[in-house]
Amino acid sequence: MSTARTLSMPYKAPVITPLHEAGIGDDGGAADAGFCARLQHAIDTKTKPVGSLGALETLAYQIGRIQQSLRPAIRRPAIIVFAGDHGIAAQGVSPFPQAVTVQMVMNFLAGGAAINAFSRSARVELEVVDAGVATEIEHPGNLVVRAVARGTRDFSVEPAMTDEQLVQALASGAERVDYQAAMGSNTIGFGEMGIANTSAAACLMSRLLDLPIDACVGRGTGLDDAGVAHKRAVLAAALERHPASPDPLVTLATFGGFEIAMMTGAYLAAAHARMTILVDGFIATAALLAASKINARVLDYCVFAHSSGEHGHQLMLEKLGAKPLLSLGLRLGEGTGAALAVPLVRAAASFLSEMASFESAGVSDRSDAPSDEH
Amino acid sequence: MSTARTLSMPYKAPVITPLHEAGIGDDGGAADAGFCARLQHAIDTKTKPVGSLGALETLAYQIGRIQQSLRPAIRRPAIIVFAGDHGIAAQGVSPFPQAVTVQMVMNFLAGGAAINAFSRSARVELEVVDAGVATEIEHPGNLVVRAVARGTRDFSVEPAMTDEQLVQALASGAERVDYQAAMGSNTIGFGEMGIANTSAAACLMSRLLDLPIDACVGRGTGLDDAGVAHKRAVLAAALERHPASPDPLVTLATFGGFEIAMMTGAYLAAAHARMTILVDGFIATAALLAASKINARVLDYCVFAHSSGEHGHQLMLEKLGAKPLLSLGLRLGEGTGAALAVPLVRAAASFLSEMASFESAGVSDRSDAPSDEH
Repeated sequence: MSTARTLSMPYKAPVITPLHEAGIGDDGGAADAGFCARLQHAIDTKTKPVGSLGALETLAYQIGRIQQSLRPAIRRPAIIVFAGDHGIAAQGVSPFPQAVTVQMVMNFLAGGAAINAFSRSARVELEVVDAGVATEIEHPGNLVVRAVARGTRDFSVEPAMTDEQLVQALASGAERVDYQAAMGSNTIGFGEMGIANTSAAACLMSRLLDLPIDACVGRGTGLDDAGVAHKRAVLAAALERHPASPDPLVTLATFGGFEIAMMTGAYLAAAHARMTILVDGFIATAALLAASKINARVLDYCVFAHSSGEHGHQLMLEKLGAKPLLSLGLRLGEGTGAALAVPLVRAAASFLSEMASFESAGVSDRSDAPSDEH
Repeated sequence: MSTARTLSMPYKAPVITPLHEAGIGDDGGAADAGFCARLQHAIDTKTKPVGSLGALETLAYQIGRIQQSLRPAIRRPAIIVFAGDHGIAAQGVSPFPQAVTVQMVMNFLAGGAAINAFSRSARVELEVVDAGVATEIEHPGNLVVRAVARGTRDFSVEPAMTDEQLVQALASGAERVDYQAAMGSNTIGFGEMGIANTSAAACLMSRLLDLPIDACVGRGTGLDDAGVAHKRAVLAAALERHPASPDPLVTLATFGGFEIAMMTGAYLAAAHARMTILVDGFIATAALLAASKINARVLDYCVFAHSSGEHGHQLMLEKLGAKPLLSLGLRLGEGTGAALAVPLVRAAASFLSEMASFESAGVSDRSDAPSDEH
């Protein structure tokens, strides 16, 4: 193995304000502490037993802090699906042919995929980005074309992308978030499509969390035991080929897909814009892992939508200290878990914004409860 | 203990068609088997790996069977909240005063409770029924008054209600479901409000599932350890006082609240009307337990919305073989868990109704997949 390298060109990551500094003037945090106390008090004095809305109370508290408001609102929630192809697909790591990536993009554009049904059902805006699928899509219609190249290179042989390509992908992801923010969205999730991208995500997970590849490899779209064993062997050899780097950007360039790198750039931009971010499944979380290694503050803005059925996702969530909202055994990607979580995020914001307090509704508090300060 | 009794007056429960007979003509089930095969085929050939939508696929299959349709639709989902008071509250089994039941009903009517926020957020119709709160509500506005009496009697001393009152409550619950069905709803959930009703539900659970009371008693709205110990002692003594009966109606009359009995009648009516039923938390599930002992076919129509934070609910779900959709640590009642599950039910129906198949979208299936029959 050669010496670990770092990125050959500059990448300026978006600045992210940590939540505990969001409300700070020159008082060293007192304003934020005051806001947090008022926020918790608002949650606790709603007409319900303290804590009785469980995880939704934690969620409401987080959204309140993100929006610095006791009456937060979920505005124009959006999901961006990034699609890209992977050179590693040539190694037979997926049961589906690579052509499916482009076919599924066409399906997204025609409105026939799961993410279309879920987005319509939950009133979520949907944008589809060609991050670099293998063949050019004619008559793209509502497709946003930001293709870095027609698929990555095979990382079992060489790095998946150049440093220039990586920086371009990160910037394109950020640009799409900025667009959605300009359209009025304050809540956003990211999905992906790309045959073989669980292989890329597994290598990223292994490197970024320093875990053996076996803990990171799953069945993807449905490999059998022999298929998983083959995938594991291919990925173990690929990891051997590339030296570990302390720079998450190098790791991302080595194994990442264009759609994964765009998601990484998108997470950082969304946190910069102080949006509530919905984190989808295995691949989306791998992209977040990379983002969190670039700037851990991104996690302050993240709501973990669900625990995927893909092997490795649960461990990834544990390492991030994440408690997902849903656990439905989904393993599809596309941002489907993020879309399904939007109504829960709406519900959390709505109870904080709309519920009466014991006092305002004239409801008696429990007889042993301390009286409110006024 | 005196001899076990049965109900002193007739109760004619609604007829429920079991799902496996829903599609049957004179062919002994072949039509239903054929429909089920087509339904599963429709789910499996959507443009996604087989099984990759996890619990939502099971849910879509159930809704498809209930509606006998490959393109089911969730129409005008509704939640009915039944409120009632309990004589057992006099024994100090809740940290909140009984007056809170009426105050919370006023809060429901003013739109300030959690169920109001969640119903608005998830676009769910909400109806509030006075099943028998302790004091008459003046200026009831949009309240549906079906009060059987001004609270039940104290079941630590005597049966909570008479047989006549029970039958009246069951009928009122059914009537409200029929109304919502007539308004166009094909999906319905039931919520409740009633200080001390976790005590009633715990006794019902203990009797209907033949479990020791300790397994059924929880903190309710927030009892401390001493409070739970007192509640447990009160309920154990009450169970001692009343002989067990093989008739679930007698058990319901002995311990049930008017709101609980109305929910029991509502479940049976909703299954009769072939509605998709969303089952909320501890008290709502106790009411369903009673319904299932009257006619187990009701369970075919039930979707379990969530696993409550109230001790005992998880065991209740296990005994029913239920796999809840959500597990958010909610312990509020009011139908809040049912409301939060509505978007998931919509999502399940929408993917089945709206997604393209591999064939219709021109997406390649996995290379090792068996080809479709046509």
